Amino acid sequence: MSEYAAPLKDMQFVLRELCGFSDLAPPAGSEDLTEELVTSILEEAGKFAAGVLSPLNGVGDREGARWQDGAVHTATGWRNAYGQFTAAGWNAMSCPSEFGGQALPRLVSALVEEMWNGANVAFALCPMLTRGAIEAIELCGTAEQKAVYLPRLISGEWTGTMNLTEPQAGSDLSAVRTRAVPQPDGSYRLHGQKIFITYGEHDLTANIVHLVLARTPDAPEGVKGISLFVVPKFLVNADGTAGARNDVRCVSIEHKLGIHGSPTAMLAFGDGEGAIGWLVGEENRGLEYMFVMMNAARYSVGLEGVGLCERAYQRARDYARDRTQGSELGVASRAKVAIVRHPDVRRMLLQMKSRTEALRALACVIAAATDAARSSADAHDRKRHQSFVDLMIPVLKGWSTETSVLVTSLGIQVHGGMGYVEETGAAQHFRDARITPIYEGTTGIQAADLIGRKILRDGGVAAGSVFSQMSQTQAQLARSDDELLSSVAVRLAEGIAALRACVAFILASSPVDARVPAVGAAPFLELFGIVAGGWQMARAGLIAQQRMQEEGADVAFLRAKQLSVKFYAEHVLSQAPGLAQAVLHGAAAALEYPDEIF
Amino acid sequence: MSEYAAPLKDMQFVLRELCGFSDLAPPAGSEDLTEELVTSILEEAGKFAAGVLSPLNGVGDREGARWQDGAVHTATGWRNAYGQFTAAGWNAMSCPSEFGGQALPRLVSALVEEMWNGANVAFALCPMLTRGAIEAIELCGTAEQKAVYLPRLISGEWTGTMNLTEPQAGSDLSAVRTRAVPQPDGSYRLHGQKIFITYGEHDLTANIVHLVLARTPDAPEGVKGISLFVVPKFLVNADGTAGARNDVRCVSIEHKLGIHGSPTAMLAFGDGEGAIGWLVGEENRGLEYMFVMMNAARYSVGLEGVGLCERAYQRARDYARDRTQGSELGVASRAKVAIVRHPDVRRMLLQMKSRTEALRALACVIAAATDAARSSADAHDRKRHQSFVDLMIPVLKGWSTETSVLVTSLGIQVHGGMGYVEETGAAQHFRDARITPIYEGTTGIQAADLIGRKILRDGGVAAGSVFSQMSQTQAQLARSDDELLSSVAVRLAEGIAALRACVAFILASSPVDARVPAVGAAPFLELFGIVAGGWQMARAGLIAQQRMQEEGADVAFLRAKQLSVKFYAEHVLSQAPGLAQAVLHGAAAALEYPDEIF
Repeated sequence: MSEYAAPLKDMQFVLRELCGFSDLAPPAGSEDLTEELVTSILEEAGKFAAGVLSPLNGVGDREGARWQDGAVHTATGWRNAYGQFTAAGWNAMSCPSEFGGQALPRLVSALVEEMWNGANVAFALCPMLTRGAIEAIELCGTAEQKAVYLPRLISGEWTGTMNLTEPQAGSDLSAVRTRAVPQPDGSYRLHGQKIFITYGEHDLTANIVHLVLARTPDAPEGVKGISLFVVPKFLVNADGTAGARNDVRCVSIEHKLGIHGSPTAMLAFGDGEGAIGWLVGEENRGLEYMFVMMNAARYSVGLEGVGLCERAYQRARDYARDRTQGSELGVASRAKVAIVRHPDVRRMLLQMKSRTEALRALACVIAAATDAARSSADAHDRKRHQSFVDLMIPVLKGWSTETSVLVTSLGIQVHGGMGYVEETGAAQHFRDARITPIYEGTTGIQAADLIGRKILRDGGVAAGSVFSQMSQTQAQLARSDDELLSSVAVRLAEGIAALRACVAFILASSPVDARVPAVGAAPFLELFGIVAGGWQMARAGLIAQQRMQEEGADVAFLRAKQLSVKFYAEHVLSQAPGLAQAVLHGAAAALEYPDEIF
Repeated sequence: MSEYAAPLKDMQFVLRELCGFSDLAPPAGSEDLTEELVTSILEEAGKFAAGVLSPLNGVGDREGARWQDGAVHTATGWRNAYGQFTAAGWNAMSCPSEFGGQALPRLVSALVEEMWNGANVAFALCPMLTRGAIEAIELCGTAEQKAVYLPRLISGEWTGTMNLTEPQAGSDLSAVRTRAVPQPDGSYRLHGQKIFITYGEHDLTANIVHLVLARTPDAPEGVKGISLFVVPKFLVNADGTAGARNDVRCVSIEHKLGIHGSPTAMLAFGDGEGAIGWLVGEENRGLEYMFVMMNAARYSVGLEGVGLCERAYQRARDYARDRTQGSELGVASRAKVAIVRHPDVRRMLLQMKSRTEALRALACVIAAATDAARSSADAHDRKRHQSFVDLMIPVLKGWSTETSVLVTSLGIQVHGGMGYVEETGAAQHFRDARITPIYEGTTGIQAADLIGRKILRDGGVAAGSVFSQMSQTQAQLARSDDELLSSVAVRLAEGIAALRACVAFILASSPVDARVPAVGAAPFLELFGIVAGGWQMARAGLIAQQRMQEEGADVAFLRAKQLSVKFYAEHVLSQAPGLAQAVLHGAAAALEYPDEIF
C-alpha cells in the first residue's frame, strides 16, 4: 500500500510564486524566517507525515478508537505517534512564542497542516481542535487561565476540545441548554450533555481541556445568552499538574462512516455535583468567541479537503501507473498498457489533480492574507486583508470539502472493482472525506454565512473587490499571445460574469424575499469556489509562462502546470454559467413545492 | 428507522402517462394483463419490499455475509426472505412462461425491480444475477441445458452467477486465462481463478449455476477466443436433483465498502481434477453471448441507481420532516421549525427527488421500448425500438449510477452530523451506491460503449433520431402559454443543442484521433443522461398540464410534478452546456499531460 508523499514541488510553487513568500511581511516573532528555513520545515514535515502518520492511517481506520467503561483507547501506535509529534514541536507551529509557540506564519503552518491531513486526517483532528482551544483562551482568557493552560496546550502536553453541539442543538446553537451555575468561589458548576465532541476523550495525554458553551441561570434566551467555559478533565493543582477528576464523563463514542481513528464523544457534564468550570471572557459573549475559533477551525477543515484530495489523487495515480489493462486507443499495437494511458483515466486523474492544485492555491492565498491582516504595517491594508479572509473562509470550507467527496469518489473509480475493496485503501479516503462538508458548519451553513454575513451585510463590497482582482488577472490572460492562456481567459471571463450576476441577484432579491437567494446559496458557494480556484489557477498559468523563459527553469513542471490550468478551465471552470442559472432561476420551484407531497 | 415505501403514485404516473401502458402491445404470454392487474402486482411487490426486504437491509449491512471453510453464510433472516421471495413467484416475473416464468412486460418487472433495489439492493443482486444466467441459457443453451437449468433458475430453487473477471482481466476481458479442456464425453474440465463473483457462494439454495468465460486449448488470442460454459456447484443427477460436488471452491469473499449482505466471491475452478462444465452455445462466441446478458444486467444496475436514489430520498425526507432546528427564514417568529422548511434543505431534497423521477421515467421508457422491440407487429418498429434501447442502456447505467452516488451523498448531508453516524442508515445507502458505477462495466466502459458502438458505428443515426424526438417535445413546450413550461423549453433547447454539438464533434474528431472524443466520453454520457432525463421530465410536465384540466384530477400531485420538472430544468438540465464545453475543448490538456509529472 502506497504511503503519502508531501507534494513539495507544488507547495513550493504556491508558496513562492502564487503567495510571493519572500515579499510578505513576516509575523512578529518570526522576522528571521528565511525561504531556506521554510523549505527545510516543509521537508521535515513531509518526512514526519510519510514516515509516522501515514502508516497509522489504515491502522486507525481498521481498529478505530475503542470506548470501555468511560475510557477511550486510541489505535495501536497512535499514542506513540502523538508523543513524537509533540516532541518534535509540530503542535506549536503558529502559536504565540510567549507561551512556547513558534509563531510561524499561517501560510507555512497551512502547508504543513495539509500534510497531516493528507497523511492521516483522523490524527490531525486532535491538534486542530487543540489549536481552537488555544485560540479561545488566547483571545479572551484571564492572565491566570493563559498561564495555566496555554503552555500545556501549545506544547501538546494536554489537548483541547470544542463543546458546542447538543442533541437538540446542532446547526442551531441558540438551542443550547447546558447550564452553568455560579459558585461562591467564582467558579461554575456545569450540567448538560454534549455530543459529537472530537477527541472529547482519549488516552493520548494526561489531561483534556474542554471549552464548553453553556447558559448561566439568568441568561437571555437564544444566542445572546450563551457563555464560554473552560472545564478541564482533571482539575489543575496549584503547581500546574493535573489533580482531581472533574465531573465530566464520556458516555459513549459514535460508530461513524469514517475517521474511525478519531474518537467522537458524547460527554455528560455534571451527572454528579456538577462539572467545575470557569468563565472565559465575559458572560453571554460565548457565541461571539466561539465564532472566532470556528472561523479558524473552518479554515482548517478546508485544509482537510485539500489533504484528502491530494492523498486520494496520489493513491489513484500510483495504481494507474501500475495496473496494466487493455491496449492503447488509436495505436495499432495490441500490447497491454498501464491504465494511465487510457483517456478516461487521464481525465479522472486530472480532475483530481487540477482541483487539488486549485484548492491548495486558494487555501494558501487565504493563509497569506491571514498573515497580512495581522502583520501589515498599514491599518487599511490589515482591514482589507481581513475582509478578504472573512469572505473566503466559507467559500474555501464549503467548496474544498464538497470537492474532497467528489475527488475521493473518483479515487475509487480509478481503481475499478479494487477501489470497492477496503484493503485497497481508496475507500477509506472516501469515507473519511464525507464528514468534512458537515462538521464545523455544514455546507448549507457556510453558504448562508457567505450570502448573509459576507455579501449582504456589506452590500457586496468585499466580493466586488475580489471580482476586480479576478478581472485584472483575466485581462492579463486575454492579452497573452499564448493560445492556451487566452482560451483560459474566455472561461474565466464567463466565470466572473456569472459571479457578478449572482451577487447582483442576491442583493436585489434578498430584501424582497430572503428565502429566494437562500435556495441558491449552496450552488453560489460552489460557483464562487470554482471561479476563485480558476482565478488562482490562471495566475499560476501566467507565472508559469513567465518563469519558463528564465534560465534553469523547470520547464517540464511549468508546462504541466499550464496543462493542469487548461484542463481545470475546460472541465471545471466551464461549469460556472450552469451554476449561475440554478442561483438565478432555481428558487421558485423549491419554495413553492408543497411540503405534504415531498 | 424508517422503512422503504414503494413510490406507487409516481410509478403509476410513469407507467400510465409517460409509457402509455394501456396502448402498448402486450408481450406473448401476457395478453390478458390489465392495468388493474399491474396495479395490484405493484401494490403486492411494494408490501413485500417494505415488509420483508427493507427490514433486512440494515441486518445484512451490519452482519455481512460470512465466509468459513469455503462456505458462505448469509445474514440472519436472509435465507427465510429468499424462500418467501421465490415462493411468492417474484423471481420469475419476466421469464418465459414455457419454463415456469410469468412473461410479464419488462416495464412492469422494471418497476418491481426498482422496489427490490430500494428496499435492499444487496439482496436484489441475487435474483438479478440469476436472471443473467437464465438469459444466457435461454439464448444459446441446448434443449437439454434449458430443460435442466431453466425451470430451477426461474423458480429460484437454484441461483445463477456470471463469472467474467480474473485478477488480470477486469475491464479488459481479452485477458481472460481460465482454461477449458475438452473431455471425451463432450464435457470440459475448467481450471482458473475468478474474482468479484456476486453470490458466487451462499447458503440460500441447494445449488448454484455458474456461467463461466474460459478458453479452449486452441482458441485464438483476445476476445475472439473466449467461450461460455455452464458449471454447476453440484453436478446434476439424471433426475434433475443436485448430485456430486463439482471442483469449484469459494476461496474467500471480499471485505467491501458496501453491499455487505451480498457475498462477493473469489472462486477457484479446478484446483483438483478440473471443474466439470459444458459449453453453452458455440465455441469462441462467449463474449458475444455475455454481452447480451451484460446489456440486460447493465440495465438492471441502472435500476439499482433508481432504487438507491429513492431510498436515500425517502430517509432524508422523513428526517427533514421530523428534525426541528432553527427558525424559518423571512418570518418574524422565532419558533423552531422542521428543517424541511429551510430553503437549502428543500433544494437538497428536490435535487434528490427530481433526479430520481427523471431516472425512473427514463428507465421505464427504455423498458417499454425493450418490450416493443420484442412485441411490435412491425419489423421496422422492432428494429427502431431495439436501436433506442441499445443506445440508451449505457446512458442509463452510467448516469443513474453516478447520480446514485450524488443523491445518497445528499441524503447524508440532509441529516447533518447524524448522517455520518452509521446507526442512522443514510451512510449505508452511500456505501452501497458506490459500487454501482463500477460493476457490470465502469462508467468509463459505458461511455466508451456509448461513443464507440452506439454513436460512431452508425454515424450518429440512432442518436439523431432520439434528438429529433427530444426536439418535438421541446417545440411543444415552447408553444405552451404556461410560463413554467416555456421556461423549461429554454433549458431543454440548450441541452439538445449541446448534445447535437457533441455528437457532431465525436463524429468529426474520432477519425483524426480516437483519443480526443474518448477524453470527453464520460462527460458526454452525463450530458446525455441529464438531457434525456430532462426530455422525460418535460414530457411529464406537458402531460401534467393537460391532465390538470380534467375532472377529478389529482391536482396537488400534478402541480408538484410540474414544480419538480421546473426544479430539474433549472438545477440539473442547466448544467448541460458546461458539460458540452468539457467534451468539445477538454481533450488536449489530458492527452498532452506528461505521464511522469502525474
